[in-house]
Amino acid sequence: MALFVEEEELVRFKHKIFSALENDPLFARVPGEELSLERYRELTFLRCRKLFEYDFLVLEEILANPLKVIVLISCLGMYDWSLGTKYLLNYQVFKDSIESSGSERHAKFIEQVESMEIFGCFALTELSHGSNTKNIRTEFVLHSPDFEAAKFWVGNMGKSATHAVVYAQLHTPDGQHQGLHSFVVQIRDPKTLLPMPGVMVGDIGRKLGQNGLDNGFALFHQVRIPRGNLLSRTGDISAEGKYTRSQAALGGFAGHLVQRESDDHRHVCGQSEAGHLHCHSFLRHPAPVRPKQRRGDSSSGVPNAAVAPAALPGSHLRPGLLLPGPLPAVCGVPHWAADEGQGRPAVNRLGDIRNDNDPNCTYEGDNNVLLQQTSNYLLRWMSERLQGHPVSSPMGSVDFLNDYDAILHQTFILPDAQDLMDSSASLRAYKWLVCYLLRGSVQKLRKQEESGCAEFEAKNNSQVYYCRSLAIAFIEHTVLEKYHKHVHSPSTPVNLQPVLKHICSLYGLWSLNKHTAILYQGGYLSGENAGKLIQDSILELCSKLKDEAVALVDVIAPPDFILSSPIAKADGELYKNLWGAVLQSPKSLERPSWWSEFCNNKPVVGKLRSRM
Amino acid sequence: MALFVEEEELVRFKHKIFSALENDPLFARVPGEELSLERYRELTFLRCRKLFEYDFLVLEEILANPLKVIVLISCLGMYDWSLGTKYLLNYQVFKDSIESSGSERHAKFIEQVESMEIFGCFALTELSHGSNTKNIRTEFVLHSPDFEAAKFWVGNMGKSATHAVVYAQLHTPDGQHQGLHSFVVQIRDPKTLLPMPGVMVGDIGRKLGQNGLDNGFALFHQVRIPRGNLLSRTGDISAEGKYTRSQAALGGFAGHLVQRESDDHRHVCGQSEAGHLHCHSFLRHPAPVRPKQRRGDSSSGVPNAAVAPAALPGSHLRPGLLLPGPLPAVCGVPHWAADEGQGRPAVNRLGDIRNDNDPNCTYEGDNNVLLQQTSNYLLRWMSERLQGHPVSSPMGSVDFLNDYDAILHQTFILPDAQDLMDSSASLRAYKWLVCYLLRGSVQKLRKQEESGCAEFEAKNNSQVYYCRSLAIAFIEHTVLEKYHKHVHSPSTPVNLQPVLKHICSLYGLWSLNKHTAILYQGGYLSGENAGKLIQDSILELCSKLKDEAVALVDVIAPPDFILSSPIAKADGELYKNLWGAVLQSPKSLERPSWWSEFCNNKPVVGKLRSRM
Repeated sequence: MALFVEEEELVRFKHKIFSALENDPLFARVPGEELSLERYRELTFLRCRKLFEYDFLVLEEILANPLKVIVLISCLGMYDWSLGTKYLLNYQVFKDSIESSGSERHAKFIEQVESMEIFGCFALTELSHGSNTKNIRTEFVLHSPDFEAAKFWVGNMGKSATHAVVYAQLHTPDGQHQGLHSFVVQIRDPKTLLPMPGVMVGDIGRKLGQNGLDNGFALFHQVRIPRGNLLSRTGDISAEGKYTRSQAALGGFAGHLVQRESDDHRHVCGQSEAGHLHCHSFLRHPAPVRPKQRRGDSSSGVPNAAVAPAALPGSHLRPGLLLPGPLPAVCGVPHWAADEGQGRPAVNRLGDIRNDNDPNCTYEGDNNVLLQQTSNYLLRWMSERLQGHPVSSPMGSVDFLNDYDAILHQTFILPDAQDLMDSSASLRAYKWLVCYLLRGSVQKLRKQEESGCAEFEAKNNSQVYYCRSLAIAFIEHTVLEKYHKHVHSPSTPVNLQPVLKHICSLYGLWSLNKHTAILYQGGYLSGENAGKLIQDSILELCSKLKDEAVALVDVIAPPDFILSSPIAKADGELYKNLWGAVLQSPKSLERPSWWSEFCNNKPVVGKLRSRM
Repeated sequence: MALFVEEEELVRFKHKIFSALENDPLFARVPGEELSLERYRELTFLRCRKLFEYDFLVLEEILANPLKVIVLISCLGMYDWSLGTKYLLNYQVFKDSIESSGSERHAKFIEQVESMEIFGCFALTELSHGSNTKNIRTEFVLHSPDFEAAKFWVGNMGKSATHAVVYAQLHTPDGQHQGLHSFVVQIRDPKTLLPMPGVMVGDIGRKLGQNGLDNGFALFHQVRIPRGNLLSRTGDISAEGKYTRSQAALGGFAGHLVQRESDDHRHVCGQSEAGHLHCHSFLRHPAPVRPKQRRGDSSSGVPNAAVAPAALPGSHLRPGLLLPGPLPAVCGVPHWAADEGQGRPAVNRLGDIRNDNDPNCTYEGDNNVLLQQTSNYLLRWMSERLQGHPVSSPMGSVDFLNDYDAILHQTFILPDAQDLMDSSASLRAYKWLVCYLLRGSVQKLRKQEESGCAEFEAKNNSQVYYCRSLAIAFIEHTVLEKYHKHVHSPSTPVNLQPVLKHICSLYGLWSLNKHTAILYQGGYLSGENAGKLIQDSILELCSKLKDEAVALVDVIAPPDFILSSPIAKADGELYKNLWGAVLQSPKSLERPSWWSEFCNNKPVVGKLRSRM
């Protein structure tokens, strides 16, 4: 199963990373150890530096198998998301944005990152408006007009970055506003780690999770940077201050589509097994999300230039585009679905794992914003369709909308229970559900517009129960479809098929069951038995999978050392392990240092009553 | 509104507590300050000791207005749940269990608690089985047979308790097993805080939340305690070792019923406004939950002795009975509904508040266990009804089941939207829902039993989609009914009625909407418009309440000092407050202490590749 879920090469690569960390004393963790913020930051930095020495991935390897990048990041993240993110932000996000938005003259930055002469961060978000790029207020000569324009949340900026890719509005001497651009800005002296003149840079302090990562802020006071530090892919400035827009800035729709699909997939990976397989099946064909195409260099598949959303320079720089292709899928796995927890001793690390996962729900904008983008994407396809154009996206996830009318006429044929053991039944229901919610959303929007709402308000008023439900249903349909195809493909080993099919059916029915009300409301389901049959089938599938559950989790589980959680050890001896860890925790048996406060200093009961 | 939600006297009392804390330097918090576990424990202890000096509640006040106990605990909890719980466990739970389970000979312990000569904890749970009292393994002469029988999780035991109320199985010299009993056990010397001989006592270490509270463990190695320390309400032992069961141990059903209803209400308080009002309306009539009746001294209202669940001594000591009446309702307010969070700087304390709330979901057993008890309670009433007995509980929450048959014949009359603005429509639908789920659960259980399942297994197999949904629907119905009555009562000020009615209707429809699938499935709803109407009404109510939302929150919000969260300050200046707090946090602008690790110690890229 492990070799089916991941190629042997990847399993080996994973094992290599895990072993290296486990055998390196710098990566050892003391159960229950209390780290100060300062020490946790230091340790994370030292571990990050060590990763340069391990240099797990050289370029040739990445080119031969791009999936290794995801495996590396997810292995580091399973060890500690602070470390995974710190490494990724410098070595991938910072470097990648210079590589892709810059030109030859920026090559020196790349070399400096690779040798750790400089350390980078990615300064997009500001104090008063997360990832809302339209409202960015930082300007060039770099200047933050007030504290609300402070760059904020920026990972690595707090303590360790020497350079930042800063997003700022570009105003040229002729008074023109040229839109959002990115600049390489030196924020600290690499010789001393002290701030550069005019840059007020600091740490936003302890966070709910990922405290090994130093998220920071920066205010710029008329900071003049070399003209060449403008990352010039979308436009450049001459010595005379004249702005020239580059051809690359006039984006096509195809890149956007692929990215949109990729973003959707980010939401999708909620179920660990299905999601895990899905990420991999999606990324086994990574060609379409390669940088060149992602950034709109390809014009193939553009259905209609009128709907291209990137008419202004910089507007293609949506947060979704700013992270390397694989990240959304990687981050997607834990996400909302993992956002649950139990009150437990810290030594078991359930709290850390939950807290470290929280930021994964906000990268690239709040999940709700991404859902809105997803429904907008579907609505655009519907207006394409209305104009007689075929619906066809590069990865095929919307192609079933060509059958929109026929699908809406379908109803649930009451199958016998056996039929529901196959995921085709859920898949059919999902197609109907997406079409039904799409119709409802179009009608709701139209009604809003007819009653005089502006587009922005109409969109806002149509999210709950309409566009938002639509986006979620579409995403779930996409996961289910991919997974269904994968599981039913001839290349799937015969001996694995039964259990994989059960997982697929369970995912389908369990997800679908959250929408049963709409299925009834719209008449796809009718009668008491339909709903009962779905529920009974879910319970039956659970009981079929129950005995396999532990083995299935073991397929994707990281080793004990990486999880570092006594109750989660593979030996299953949870009480023994917890007991051992508690006894080994520092000071577990000592009386408190403040014991004499109890023994020798008794309260005078009621002494302070009169003071109130 | 504030005076309607709480009596003036309580508002004043609350203000008195908040002011006292705010004006006392011991209770000051430094934004973003990093407390070691040791220091946080010490501070919590010192604050707890100070509460003895404030002595906010003297007995006469409690008797005059028992709601003040809840107000005190919830005020302390809003300040810091570690402190609230630490204080409550010693001063209420420990003391109350001695008072109620003990007799005159235990009075000295009460005096010692009140003067803080001793400090108590409540040792029920053990390492291998949370609140599952049937499996408790500690025995008398106190002995823990192995580490799995270690008392575990016990609040105050970790560092500060000198005495514990310990639950243990009682075996008498004649070889008889007399069931679960409680004993006062000295675990540390109050002069030194060092452990007593034979007691291995310690701290379970850092937890996900409430880290100011020292949860601990204890193993007993043949620890002999004075015979008199048996808390003797349910049975006593003579000098010759002869056991005599007391009359009080033969419990009635009435006390159980009231407690059962009280437990249900614990689940209920999910919606802050409705729940808040509900708790108070419920506890304005606290008489039925007074200790005497709770423990079954009253025999009124016993419908049938055969269904009394407390046939064995000790079996009435379900966790639900072990906490003082008001606690479940108090703890209920945050609970599951509050179990959400956002990745934010720690200085805003959203993480602390979430983490501190987590344990509230497990006190007295996991929520799911309590749900199972709730459905069992309803099922018992149904079998009563089958035997021709009327359904009538002390607080009336199940009385509508007398109309079970008629209710099941009702369907949703498609009202115009205006009718849904009144909560009667949801209330009617909920009554149908509870009856429908009750019928389904009975059928499911019968089917399981017919197919040869034992009772335990049949119950387990009938939870998902049946008994569990039943319990949730019943609880939501109970909140809605109480709140509906409260809001529509003539004593509700006329000027407050519109907004209170909107809240009530919104709570009703929003909760009901989660069950729309079942309403369709069972035929209560039919047609596309019914579901749409519910959703449209929810949206309309939201838009009606939108402008009042902040004012409504302010009615129940604690002052800024208590919340201690920059983004939550009443002035609404979230960015300004966050910016200020970040800049005031320690070391926010300093370079890291480990700066030379970056500047003077560069990695040799790839140095370790060959080692892997």
